[in-house]
Amino acid sequence: MKERELIDIIARLAGEQRPGLLRGIGDDCAVIEGRPGLVQLVTMDTLVESVHFDPDWHPPEKLGRKAVAVNVSDVAAMGGTPSFVLLSLGLPAGFDDQWVDRFLRGFTGSCREYGCLLIGGDTVRSPDRIVITVTVIGEAAADQVVYRSRARPGDTIWVSGSLGRAAAGLELCRAGASQSSDPLLESLVEAHLDPRARTVAGRLLAASGLVHAMIDLSDGLATDLAHLCEESRAGAVVEAEKLPAGPALYRASRLLHLDPVRLMVSGGEDYELLFTAGPAAGGDLLRLAAKAGVSFSPVGVITERSGVWLKRAGPGRDAVGEVRIDYKGFDHFPGPAKR
Amino acid sequence: MKERELIDIIARLAGEQRPGLLRGIGDDCAVIEGRPGLVQLVTMDTLVESVHFDPDWHPPEKLGRKAVAVNVSDVAAMGGTPSFVLLSLGLPAGFDDQWVDRFLRGFTGSCREYGCLLIGGDTVRSPDRIVITVTVIGEAAADQVVYRSRARPGDTIWVSGSLGRAAAGLELCRAGASQSSDPLLESLVEAHLDPRARTVAGRLLAASGLVHAMIDLSDGLATDLAHLCEESRAGAVVEAEKLPAGPALYRASRLLHLDPVRLMVSGGEDYELLFTAGPAAGGDLLRLAAKAGVSFSPVGVITERSGVWLKRAGPGRDAVGEVRIDYKGFDHFPGPAKR
Repeated sequence: MKERELIDIIARLAGEQRPGLLRGIGDDCAVIEGRPGLVQLVTMDTLVESVHFDPDWHPPEKLGRKAVAVNVSDVAAMGGTPSFVLLSLGLPAGFDDQWVDRFLRGFTGSCREYGCLLIGGDTVRSPDRIVITVTVIGEAAADQVVYRSRARPGDTIWVSGSLGRAAAGLELCRAGASQSSDPLLESLVEAHLDPRARTVAGRLLAASGLVHAMIDLSDGLATDLAHLCEESRAGAVVEAEKLPAGPALYRASRLLHLDPVRLMVSGGEDYELLFTAGPAAGGDLLRLAAKAGVSFSPVGVITERSGVWLKRAGPGRDAVGEVRIDYKGFDHFPGPAKR
Repeated sequence: MKERELIDIIARLAGEQRPGLLRGIGDDCAVIEGRPGLVQLVTMDTLVESVHFDPDWHPPEKLGRKAVAVNVSDVAAMGGTPSFVLLSLGLPAGFDDQWVDRFLRGFTGSCREYGCLLIGGDTVRSPDRIVITVTVIGEAAADQVVYRSRARPGDTIWVSGSLGRAAAGLELCRAGASQSSDPLLESLVEAHLDPRARTVAGRLLAASGLVHAMIDLSDGLATDLAHLCEESRAGAVVEAEKLPAGPALYRASRLLHLDPVRLMVSGGEDYELLFTAGPAAGGDLLRLAAKAGVSFSPVGVITERSGVWLKRAGPGRDAVGEVRIDYKGFDHFPGPAKR
């Protein structure tokens, strides 16, 4: 069984509605009724040692920060503000006190930066590996929450920041270059080790009323855009040449002999925002980006045709091919279209 | 570092207050402001394969039910009603689809029984072991929440149901008797495999206004009463002969060559309620127990002297000794006082 099938089974068994629930399984956060005029956003993510992080190159402070950020990012992607955090920490017997202390300092420091507070959780013995599960509860104005499910054909698809950075950083770590002295490469490693959630941009986008649908890029553009399209019963075309790469990504791609487009499309953990808006909203969105201190790039369009398609120049540089990329993680990505 | 020290460090680092937070780390649930007149109760617990359960004898449906119950029990212990549930499920690669399906059926069925709904979570790969983390969000009337911290010297200490059952059931499973044909022993095994949270009793106790402090018995009477006393800046004396044992416990104790008092004092996972009330409340509490369909037993008294003490007849049966039992888990429990 694949993860998506498992989630489908869970969603089917979870079943019926309940008063006070606005959105259950299927978006970045569950949405429940809150104080008057507000809703609560609830999300939960787990990081498992050697699956999601490698303590050999992940400093504990940064891992603590990342455990907060990946959850806060889900709240940001619905336009909310994180309020409260719960942490379940599974540790092997005879764990390293110093490691735990540094992890917790990073964790609670990150909570403070995002304006939320650790209020509970659990500590358990996990014999083989460190396991970190975090729940974040956020809040948003009830009339401003942005769902995945409301993209409309004709919408422009936008992403914040630049893409593929965390995936390139992970590859650099795997190649033993986590301590690079090249500041460009170092910035990619940092993107993997210590990502930041786009809370300010998420809130401004939600408050603007311009955005139809939004999701955070945790599993990679191909997968996350496919989620958004599926929930919106629509499709998408992304243009490879519009994808925002930075000079660091090109440098790392050459060094690692990797395709930068592949890193941008299939690489996970950028924690940038992907959102859609009507084609006339471009000017307003660029002004809003300046206010949020981040770049927004239009990368494609929502279509009635289903599927997520990547338009890319073929090897001959004179022809453009389209390849379907829904849910293609890095390993399974089929590469550019052949003529 | 011990778990309690770790939790102290976490509580210290978590730090300051925040508007909307009524109680952070240190009770069964965190308590935050909710809809008008209500508070939200939030709790999180993790079960790790071979630490908290053994799939060899734990049927997946019952494990799913238990994962819900142990969290709902925390909500019950503050007088609340569970509303929403999040599940993070870590599974080894190539997990057994049938096992997962049965686990999820038990999990969601239990949610329905307690009147709450699974609304989100995460699924991850956990290479060596199944890891289950659950967050439950409950609700309670703001003026009825019962904390651990308000026990008063002179209060009578009460427990619901009978004690030591789950610990005896676990020992039976370990001894290979999980499939006992003796209905008494079978009921102990069930107490371990499929515990029920005392939601009805918890709500009635909270609404009665009679109860000063309450906690659920997850880590055993000695440990949980020590938590309650520490938070209340008080102590306690428990009388061994008042502890509610059932005939099943005596039968299992003989079979396993275990001390039934030790099972009742140090055995965890009974998920009964321990609460304190003024000495005049006894009659009202017994009427309330009948309404809740459960027994309540007075087992001791809250004292100004600190520490949790067990009063027990010495080996000679003619003398009574006191032994301090704070935070004594099953393995560390020093046994009855010697003359």
